[in-house]
Amino acid sequence: MSKNIPEKVSNRLTLYHSIMVEYIEDGIDTISSPQIAQRLGIDDSQVRKDFKLLNNPGKCRVGYLVKDLKDSIEKTLGFAHAKDAFIVGSGHLGLALAKYDSFNSYGLNILALFDNDPQKVDLQVNNKQIFHISKLPNLAQRLGVDIAILTVPRKNAQQVADFLINSNIKYIWNFTPAVLKVPPTVKVWNENLMGSFLQFACKDIIGD
Amino acid sequence: MSKNIPEKVSNRLTLYHSIMVEYIEDGIDTISSPQIAQRLGIDDSQVRKDFKLLNNPGKCRVGYLVKDLKDSIEKTLGFAHAKDAFIVGSGHLGLALAKYDSFNSYGLNILALFDNDPQKVDLQVNNKQIFHISKLPNLAQRLGVDIAILTVPRKNAQQVADFLINSNIKYIWNFTPAVLKVPPTVKVWNENLMGSFLQFACKDIIGD
Repeated sequence: MSKNIPEKVSNRLTLYHSIMVEYIEDGIDTISSPQIAQRLGIDDSQVRKDFKLLNNPGKCRVGYLVKDLKDSIEKTLGFAHAKDAFIVGSGHLGLALAKYDSFNSYGLNILALFDNDPQKVDLQVNNKQIFHISKLPNLAQRLGVDIAILTVPRKNAQQVADFLINSNIKYIWNFTPAVLKVPPTVKVWNENLMGSFLQFACKDIIGD
Repeated sequence: MSKNIPEKVSNRLTLYHSIMVEYIEDGIDTISSPQIAQRLGIDDSQVRKDFKLLNNPGKCRVGYLVKDLKDSIEKTLGFAHAKDAFIVGSGHLGLALAKYDSFNSYGLNILALFDNDPQKVDLQVNNKQIFHISKLPNLAQRLGVDIAILTVPRKNAQQVADFLINSNIKYIWNFTPAVLKVPPTVKVWNENLMGSFLQFACKDIIGD
């Protein structure tokens, strides 16, 4: 991704992208900005402003060519540069993420899962194998993987993070509620479901 | 929540809260703003600025009283006003969310799960029962629940959302990649894991 796109815009672009995927499945070739705007409950002018960030968005007489618009969003958001990652922790959340096929179309390639439960090791989920956690350092090195998606229980999160860091993992997408202690060379992205819920709850349910 | 707190601040407050939970578990009574700042890799002045939004944050000679600070964050973010919700879809993601005990401490009370798979109906997960989806309208009315967490497969998402709306559900926390069509009386919060990953990937891996 060459442009520095603000978080809110990039979030909207992924929503537009979801709509394009649906239109293609439904065999619809064109879409207009008011159609997109109405679907998302936002203003038409916002959609058109966002599209100004795209190269070749497929403008046509009646709006946009769905296929071109989808490709353009993918290029702008950098989906073309696929990244390999491991899922560490094969509980329900880890398995749910392993089955989340959308990751792939957004440039995240899950190569394998890890767990310390012998009952889970060697199982396959969505064509991905679950390995014993002890195999991670070697596999990370051989496959050149430096991204880990952490989905272990909170009480094990720091210990497993330390192990990942010693295995040269540089990026941790942290789905646990733990706040991880990491050296400055390691980046953590906290997937803050709570913060997200609070936004939802505060804005729309509890009220400002 | 009486104050209108920006999303980034509310996200940081939930991270501070996680650290307080951990300190209490570890039996530590006080914490300083530089300790919190260092842990999150942010500036001390940012932490102190955020704390200015709190009532009675427990300021003391060496920093803050952990218990008071935790209570104050909870009050400010409105955790006290617990909300009841259903999880609709008992696949891996639904089960993972049902087991996510942190929801409770943040004021979200999952009463039950729903699915259409007879093999799952009547099972218990984390002391919550899985009901057949056909029971939802009646239970929603009897229990006064108007929040649903949607974790069904994308291809069923719209159909199930329509069913929820007909059951008087007013708030849908959408974990599916589908962009839902809903009437203006229904609010949807899209849990955009893709947008989140792209932020992570673009900021820290691919680079600006």
